[in-house]
Amino acid sequence: MARKYAIIGTGALGGFYGAKLAKSGQDVHFLLHSDYDFVRENGLKIDSVNGDFSLPNVNAYNNPQNMPKCDVIIVSLKTTNNHLLPDILPHLISNDSLILLLENGFNIEFEIAKIVGDNRIMGGVCSLCSNKIAPGYIKHLDYGAITLGDYAPNYQICGVTNRMQNVANDFINAGITINLAEDLLLARWKKLVWNIPYNGLSVVLNSTTDQLMDNPFSRQLVIELMQEVQLGASGNNRVIPDDYITEMLDYTDKMTPYSPSMKLDYEAKRPLEVEAILGHPLKEAEKNKIQLPKIKMLYQQLKFINMFM
Amino acid sequence: MARKYAIIGTGALGGFYGAKLAKSGQDVHFLLHSDYDFVRENGLKIDSVNGDFSLPNVNAYNNPQNMPKCDVIIVSLKTTNNHLLPDILPHLISNDSLILLLENGFNIEFEIAKIVGDNRIMGGVCSLCSNKIAPGYIKHLDYGAITLGDYAPNYQICGVTNRMQNVANDFINAGITINLAEDLLLARWKKLVWNIPYNGLSVVLNSTTDQLMDNPFSRQLVIELMQEVQLGASGNNRVIPDDYITEMLDYTDKMTPYSPSMKLDYEAKRPLEVEAILGHPLKEAEKNKIQLPKIKMLYQQLKFINMFM
Repeated sequence: MARKYAIIGTGALGGFYGAKLAKSGQDVHFLLHSDYDFVRENGLKIDSVNGDFSLPNVNAYNNPQNMPKCDVIIVSLKTTNNHLLPDILPHLISNDSLILLLENGFNIEFEIAKIVGDNRIMGGVCSLCSNKIAPGYIKHLDYGAITLGDYAPNYQICGVTNRMQNVANDFINAGITINLAEDLLLARWKKLVWNIPYNGLSVVLNSTTDQLMDNPFSRQLVIELMQEVQLGASGNNRVIPDDYITEMLDYTDKMTPYSPSMKLDYEAKRPLEVEAILGHPLKEAEKNKIQLPKIKMLYQQLKFINMFM
Repeated sequence: MARKYAIIGTGALGGFYGAKLAKSGQDVHFLLHSDYDFVRENGLKIDSVNGDFSLPNVNAYNNPQNMPKCDVIIVSLKTTNNHLLPDILPHLISNDSLILLLENGFNIEFEIAKIVGDNRIMGGVCSLCSNKIAPGYIKHLDYGAITLGDYAPNYQICGVTNRMQNVANDFINAGITINLAEDLLLARWKKLVWNIPYNGLSVVLNSTTDQLMDNPFSRQLVIELMQEVQLGASGNNRVIPDDYITEMLDYTDKMTPYSPSMKLDYEAKRPLEVEAILGHPLKEAEKNKIQLPKIKMLYQQLKFINMFM
C-alpha cells in the first residue's frame, strides 16, 4: 500500500527523491514556492544518469494548510529556510508521522524536535550531485545514496530501528541506494568530512571540486580540514577512521567536476548554509574543548562573504 | 655633498622614495622597465598628501650596465622579481656600496647576501600607502615612514650603526620619517603583523582593509592571524607585545580604505608575493617547531589563487 510522503522543499534534492518515490508508486505531496505554478501545470522532469523521466501530474501545493497529513515528511529545505518550519510542519503531522530530515549540516535535528517532539525524527545524509536547472526540472549528475539514521535526544545511538527499515524499503523500491546507520551523529560528522572542505573552499576560492583537487596546496588544505572534522568527531567519542578520508578523496577525484551546493547558492546570491555546515560543528567542538582552527577560519571567511549574499 | 642612490624598481614605492630623495638634492639613478621611455622623456610626477611635485628630468635607465656605481642601492622590486637581481646588482656595486632592501617579506636579505656578500645589506620596512596610477605617476595616499635596520648573517642584532644613521639622515632631509631599529628581524616580524592578514585576506576575500575591519568575523580573523605572527616571532626569541597588535588595528581603522599591494597585484593579474610574505615565515616557524595553522591555510589559499595569476 502506498504511503503518503510530503516533500518540504522541492529543489534539486527534494524534487529528485520525491519524484523517484512518486514514480515508484508512493503518494507524494510536494510543497513548492517559486516553482508552484509551473509544476502544478507541467509536473516534474528529471534528467538522470540512471535514466530520464517525467511526471506530468504531481500533487503540488504552495500552502501547507492544503496538504494532507502524511506518513513521512521529508524536509529538504536549505537550512537557511528552517525558520519556516514551525508554520509548515504542524499542518502535516498526525500521530504516527515521521519527519525525515534530508538537510546538510549538524545539530539540526534539535531545532526540528522543538517543533515536532523528540520521537518522530530521522536524519538522512545524502550523497547526491544534482542541480535544479529550470522550474520543475532537475538534472541528476551523479551518486544518490542516502545514509539513514534514527534520532533520539542528544544523538543517543539508536541502532537500526523498524521505522528506519520501513522508510528504507520505500526508497529502495524507488531505486535509491540506502545505507542504514546505527549512529546518526557519526553519520552527520562523516558527511561533514566532505561538506566542510568542498562547500567552504569552493566558495572562498571560487572553484569547483576538481580544481581544488588538482592544485597540491588546496588539496593538502582539503585533507587538513578533513582531519579537523575527524578531530571534532572525537570530541563526541565518534571515530572516523583515516581510511574514510582516503575514501572521500578518491570519491571526489572520480567525481564529475562539480559545484557543491554552497557554491551554487553563492553564484545565485542566496544565503549560504554557513551555520548548519560549519557553525554548529564548531560550537559542538568548542563545548568539547577542541580547537579546530582551520574550520574556524573557513567559517569566518564564509561569514564575511555571506554578508554580501 | 650629494650621494649617489640607485632605485631598482621605480614603482609605487621605489618611485616615491627615489623622487623624494632626488628632490632633496641627492643624485638618484632610476632603473625602469615598462615605464622607461615615458619617464626618460617626462620624468616623475608625485601626487602626495604631503604636497604634489614633479621631477621633469630624472636619470632613467633601462639597462643596469649603463648605470653608475652607487653609494646606496635601494632594491624596491616585487620579491617575485628578485631573480633579476644577480644580473643587476653587480653592475652598481663599488667597495663601499650599501644595499637597502625596501621589500616586503621575510628572510629576503639572505638571498641578496648570496649576490653581494653579508656585510653591505640594510633592510627597511615601509609603512606607505601609495599606488602607481600611470607611467611615472605615483599617488601617495597616506603614511610613509621607514623603519631601518642593519643586517648581519642569521639576523644577529646589529644595534644602530653609523651607516644606518648616514642613510637615515638623507631620508630625513628628504622629508621621510625614519625609525632606527636595533633588530632588523624583529622589525620584519612586526611588519608581518600587518602584511600577512591584510595582504592575504584582501586577496582571498576580494576586499579592502575597511571591509575586513568592519565585519566582526573577518576582524576577529585578522586578530587571530596577527597573534599567530606574534607566536612565530617568539620562535626566534623576538617579543611582539600585545599592544603592538592593538596599535596595528587602530592604525588600520584610521587608514583611508586601502587595497594592499597584494590585492593590487591580484587585480592586475601579476604574480603574488606569497612566498616572501607567508611562505618564508612559515618555513622559519616550522624550523622552530611552531605551528601557525591559520597562516598556513592562508598560504595554501593564496598558492591556489596564485596559480591563475
